[in-house]
Order: sequence, then C-alpha cells, then structure tokens
Amino acid sequence: MEKVNLVEKLACFSEHWTPKIIAGLNGQHVKLVKARGEFPWHHHEREDELFLVVRGWFRMEFRDRSVVLREGEMIVVPRGVEHRPVADEEVSLLLFEPASTVNTGSAGGEKTVARPEWI
Amino acid sequence: MEKVNLVEKLACFSEHWTPKIIAGLNGQHVKLVKARGEFPWHHHEREDELFLVVRGWFRMEFRDRSVVLREGEMIVVPRGVEHRPVADEEVSLLLFEPASTVNTGSAGGEKTVARPEWI
Repeated sequence: MEKVNLVEKLACFSEHWTPKIIAGLNGQHVKLVKARGEFPWHHHEREDELFLVVRGWFRMEFRDRSVVLREGEMIVVPRGVEHRPVADEEVSLLLFEPASTVNTGSAGGEKTVARPEWI
Repeated sequence: MEKVNLVEKLACFSEHWTPKIIAGLNGQHVKLVKARGEFPWHHHEREDELFLVVRGWFRMEFRDRSVVLREGEMIVVPRGVEHRPVADEEVSLLLFEPASTVNTGSAGGEKTVARPEWI
C-alpha cells in the first residue's frame, strides 16, 4: 500500500510501446506506456481497454474514424473492436485493462510484450 | 467509443462524496468524486480500490498510518483493509474499482451512494 507517482514512474523508462505495470487490483493491471509512431492494427478477444493520456496527445484510429486524445482525456476500446494508436509525437499513456491483456492482441508481431515488467 | 475529458466531467457536478461513473469496462467502473472533510472508516469485503488524484490533495488514513497523495499520485487499497479518506481542502479523485463497489463498504450510513449516477 505504497503510493505511486505517475511522473516518477514515467521517468524510470524511455522505450516506446513497452507497457510497464504500476499496480494490480481485481485481476486488472494499471500500466504506463510511452508511444511514438504507429502501432499495428489489432483487437482483443476478451478484454476492454482504457487509455488515459498523462502527457502529450495521440490519435486512436478505428476502421471508420479516429479520435484525438489530449492530456486528461481517456477512451475505452471495447473487446473485439479493431484499433490502432498513432502518436505523431511522444505520448505517455496510462492503461487500465485485465491482467491477461497482451498489447498487440490479435496481431502479434515484434511489438508484442507477453509479460510486461513491473516498475 | 467517445472520449471522456476529466476536467469537463468534473465541471458537471459539485457535491462531495458522491461518486459519478464516467466509464465501464471488464466489470469495473471508472468514477470521479469530489471530496472534502472526513469519510467514515470502512473496508470492502471483495473489492480492491484505486484512488488517483486528479486535482488537489488528500490523506488516506489507515489504522496504523496515513499516506498523503497529491496530483498525479495514486494508491491501491486492497479488499479487507480499513481506510478513511480525509481531505482538508477539496480534492478531485478518479476511482477504478469493480462495478459492485459501494462507496461506504462495510460502514453504510448517510454517505452511502448505492447506485452512482453516470455522467
């Protein structure tokens, strides 16, 4: 039951697209991730995902539209919905999702982080 | 799949200790609450709770110690652990917890919000 400071945790890593776990509760994980560029199109079969912008901005692309999210804005992507985060500049995101969630979901590939690190 | 802006949602209400639901995913709710003063001592039998400070600061009291949390800091209170949030000044919090969670847990009483409103 120690507190977690988001800015301090973000200072612990610099890689992109490599989610880090900062808390676990009720079978869910809270993660931080830094991102820049395009992530692969994918969906998750069984997991809804929440993205909250901690710093910067990015665009969540869906097949039929996209949503720009800025600091203090969040979006829930329901299971089964294809999506692709795209960050023209570096963005820092907080994720809430089931502990079972793998970042690339249906897509797999080189950006897959099967067992994210706790920081 | 609309985005949610935390500042805009916080502008929608002014009551204290009345959590509002802003998102649902994986059987969990994301809530916003404004608080000032002391909340009753309580615990939750089956739910872990996450508190993230969006604006201001508060003190999470446990029976044997307390933790001061400022903007951008969060804490997980595991199920079964007695706790009491105390805010000397108004604080705005984001909560992440199972949809079944009742704010006053084991304590009940006049601050109980059995069915929080969606905003």
